Amino acid sequence: MLFFEDIEVGWRRELGRHTFTADEIKRFASRYDPQLFHIDENEAKKSHFGALCASGWHTAAVCMRTIVESSKQLADAMAARGEKVAKTGPSPGFSNLKWLKPVYAGDTISFVSEVIETRPSESRTGWGIVRTRFSGHNQNGAPVYQFEGVVFVERRST
Amino acid sequence: MLFFEDIEVGWRRELGRHTFTADEIKRFASRYDPQLFHIDENEAKKSHFGALCASGWHTAAVCMRTIVESSKQLADAMAARGEKVAKTGPSPGFSNLKWLKPVYAGDTISFVSEVIETRPSESRTGWGIVRTRFSGHNQNGAPVYQFEGVVFVERRST
Repeated sequence: MLFFEDIEVGWRRELGRHTFTADEIKRFASRYDPQLFHIDENEAKKSHFGALCASGWHTAAVCMRTIVESSKQLADAMAARGEKVAKTGPSPGFSNLKWLKPVYAGDTISFVSEVIETRPSESRTGWGIVRTRFSGHNQNGAPVYQFEGVVFVERRST
Repeated sequence: MLFFEDIEVGWRRELGRHTFTADEIKRFASRYDPQLFHIDENEAKKSHFGALCASGWHTAAVCMRTIVESSKQLADAMAARGEKVAKTGPSPGFSNLKWLKPVYAGDTISFVSEVIETRPSESRTGWGIVRTRFSGHNQNGAPVYQFEGVVFVERRST
């Protein structure tokens, strides 16, 4: 991760994209959210969704993967350039998680992060607090998912 | 589901319990949350968690399964008694999701629901709104997870 001092409000990163196949939607939902509109195309057609769509927890899990993988890529790229990589602390939590539209079978969701607040931590010397909005948009540009996360980020020791 | 008129604040249900094995924790995390403390026992020991623990999204997904399965059991039992089963509408969302403590490999989490608010819907005639707190406790009784969900529930047409 960048050091706290190098992170600015508005910093936006493309985290990755993922196409939700019908098979994958049904596999996740069979295990964790076996509602008919997530596991059966015909039942989904008759539901208020109108077609097979992913469990919201599936969308959340895939988003988490893009966050972890893109953070690792960022850290690896910094290390490869010989830059020191800042530590991050445990997250104090998140808020405002919303599933804004269904994610249908075949949809490709692009996930992005955008920093919306930065402030020094009052309780933990040497750390800053960064609030980020994570969101997913489908192939038509429509927002389908979002949440805000907060994380402690190491400050430069100068 | 019970009809809106039959649901009272304080109605509490045991939804089910689940033991999170190390294999399962690593399998979920490898796919959706590949941070070292979720996929490698030795790295987890060195982390602030101190031992392998489940991705928060894994806990959330397992909780969702207990919600779906226990709702189906409730509906099946009502139908078997010849009672009419109330419809539920799409959920307008949830709030206050918190991961309160880590879920470690070997922990058994018991999930419960408790109704915390009921009110008639002003916008949708024939429906009521039910707010429920879902929570998970480990084998020591410590709360590890919670969120509040809102759902539309059919009213009796009298």
